[in-house]
Amino acid sequence: MRAVVLSIGSELVGGLRLDTHSRDIARGLSALGIEVVRHITLDDDVAAIAGAIRRAADEADVIVVSGGLGPTQDDCTRHALADAMGEQLVENKDATAHLQRWAKARGRTVSRANRVQTLLPRGARVLPNPVGTAVGIDARLGGARIFCIPGVPVEMRTMLDEQVLPQLGRSAGGRVMVVRTVRTFGLRESVVGEKLPDLMAPGRRPHVGTAVHSGIIDIHVYASGAPDEAEALVAADVSTVRDRMGTAVFAEGHGALEDAVAALLVERRATVAIAESCTGGLVAAKLVNVPGMSNHLVEGVVAYANASKVRALGVDEALITEHGAVSEAVARAMAEGVRRRAAADLALGITGVAGPGGGTPEKPVGTVWMALADSDGTEAARHFLMGDRAEIRERAAYCALNMLRVRLLGA
Amino acid sequence: MRAVVLSIGSELVGGLRLDTHSRDIARGLSALGIEVVRHITLDDDVAAIAGAIRRAADEADVIVVSGGLGPTQDDCTRHALADAMGEQLVENKDATAHLQRWAKARGRTVSRANRVQTLLPRGARVLPNPVGTAVGIDARLGGARIFCIPGVPVEMRTMLDEQVLPQLGRSAGGRVMVVRTVRTFGLRESVVGEKLPDLMAPGRRPHVGTAVHSGIIDIHVYASGAPDEAEALVAADVSTVRDRMGTAVFAEGHGALEDAVAALLVERRATVAIAESCTGGLVAAKLVNVPGMSNHLVEGVVAYANASKVRALGVDEALITEHGAVSEAVARAMAEGVRRRAAADLALGITGVAGPGGGTPEKPVGTVWMALADSDGTEAARHFLMGDRAEIRERAAYCALNMLRVRLLGA
Repeated sequence: MRAVVLSIGSELVGGLRLDTHSRDIARGLSALGIEVVRHITLDDDVAAIAGAIRRAADEADVIVVSGGLGPTQDDCTRHALADAMGEQLVENKDATAHLQRWAKARGRTVSRANRVQTLLPRGARVLPNPVGTAVGIDARLGGARIFCIPGVPVEMRTMLDEQVLPQLGRSAGGRVMVVRTVRTFGLRESVVGEKLPDLMAPGRRPHVGTAVHSGIIDIHVYASGAPDEAEALVAADVSTVRDRMGTAVFAEGHGALEDAVAALLVERRATVAIAESCTGGLVAAKLVNVPGMSNHLVEGVVAYANASKVRALGVDEALITEHGAVSEAVARAMAEGVRRRAAADLALGITGVAGPGGGTPEKPVGTVWMALADSDGTEAARHFLMGDRAEIRERAAYCALNMLRVRLLGA
Repeated sequence: MRAVVLSIGSELVGGLRLDTHSRDIARGLSALGIEVVRHITLDDDVAAIAGAIRRAADEADVIVVSGGLGPTQDDCTRHALADAMGEQLVENKDATAHLQRWAKARGRTVSRANRVQTLLPRGARVLPNPVGTAVGIDARLGGARIFCIPGVPVEMRTMLDEQVLPQLGRSAGGRVMVVRTVRTFGLRESVVGEKLPDLMAPGRRPHVGTAVHSGIIDIHVYASGAPDEAEALVAADVSTVRDRMGTAVFAEGHGALEDAVAALLVERRATVAIAESCTGGLVAAKLVNVPGMSNHLVEGVVAYANASKVRALGVDEALITEHGAVSEAVARAMAEGVRRRAAADLALGITGVAGPGGGTPEKPVGTVWMALADSDGTEAARHFLMGDRAEIRERAAYCALNMLRVRLLGA
């Protein structure tokens, strides 16, 4: 089965508000094994919505429309649906009864404005709405089943979960969409692609695709079909992906890089201290977001000013003068300084040029030196990171966490 | 001018990831007075994307496509564009030069996988990408101008702001949408509403609305029309809003709370030190995200473990035993300790229960104590914050920054 998801609202199409409904509806449909072929976001415009419904009915078996069922003049989804079906809007007894019950329970009378909510295209059925005045609409056009539900978030959610998905689940005949995600850090996207040419071949089942954010590369594996068969196919690919990506893999599913680091710190019973310049506390803050790190993160020092690097971390002032604050020597001295001070097993030092100013030909904006010290000694690495100041700092924080992760893996 | 926004990605259409690009692109286009008629989210599928581009070219003057320009096999936006235009993909010299410069700056060679990124439909032009390997594409089909930009967030943002919107702005002319935002912190949303009942009346022009995130309340004022008239109307409302909100206002536009704090630190030539427990470096990290803070943020200490509060900040162990780590006494001692240690003008101490565990009836999850010390003494405040661990920490960081801001305002 194939589906199209329509979201109606001028605040959505104009970009004033973020459309999260399409994502929620698509996720629900995908989990039933229904292939979502497109989302369309439209203004409250009868002709545009009617046209989109007609086109969607040609290419999909299911159409879910959210929004535009309210009582105000701009709401026109019911009119557009009637147009698309070539039917009249007529009063529906179930809708009227719903509205009367709703008003009565609140000691009100049905307002004139609300009466439009009792109109449905001839032949369409009511989808009950337990949490609002607007009933949903269940209709057919050609071979397609069309569900219209309100855009008010709690009403959308309730009707999606209690009406649309259960009804589709019964007709989906046991097919599901299985999705698993392998999360990696440390490889470039082109390198990931080169390691998976067979799996990522267009048209292959399962489908394997990548998505990148702040240096993290997620590899999604998905297949629809009978639950056991789809699950087995996806599991086989996930296993292949994990093998080929090796230690770049830090999680499956939604786990964050800091979760992987935290789990290793617990497993190895290791303590860590962190000295941060350009990241300014971001590495520590990410680690603290994992509950239970107080026995493992011994101390963090934000030594953004050079004076603080000297006083708080014991970095030799001559090193800064000779090599600059962003240098291998200073990163090493920061890591070793905070490790000594906090008596931690491991320690990170991070110093870089986050921009927008401060770059030089030898050390352009995005140059970040980081060092990791433990009882065996200190290693250092240099990264050239892209993006604006916030993005460079975010990527630097992930690079540092990954450096710690890889060391802990080898421990 | 009318526009269609296309977002490409199977993780988007399947609901695995939220599409924020369509919103960002639509908002940028709307601000230029361009009417966005629809967003369409599609799988990486040549036929589907080519079809959508062709249909969009019939109904719109501008098409902005994000995503599907990467080096892996699933990326097919360039192929789809070529199909829609009925042109061949050919190597583009500007794209090749970009990729070679990119690789050279990083001491690498251009990988085989990346070569596909030098291919453009014949007749299309390169949109420079200063922050990634994938150049954008600027093409025409019928009467429509088509911009394809990468989906990687920082690349999308940069190319939207630096290429697409400026190029369209030059050709727009006429009506515009004027939007200005007044940012406040420290008032509840219901209180903001009670202070602005006349401005927020439905149907009024300009339209005034609020949006809340992590305790920050943004008040948006918008009107469309001729530039001068709309600008004047909006300016009058912005001035009223500022008057009524008083010192709760920290910025207009996109300015962050930390930007306001940083500006005051510079203006007052003040230095600050920060001792963080539950926020774990988040307050320092936010401040470091403002360029030029190295003369003002003297030092940050992440004292998440109690031992670190004692050793690094000189907090009396007896205080922790008697009052608990989350207490007014400990917050005060942390602020005073880090101020002494760093010899700063002002100092913050933050300690709280971020959850999910650790709450008690007297100190439920979300209880955060913070203190601000300066030469006049130390003040403390308690907050009960809502949300999950990350949200509580984020809100606590903003509360602390706001405490500092209000003190600096009064200085």
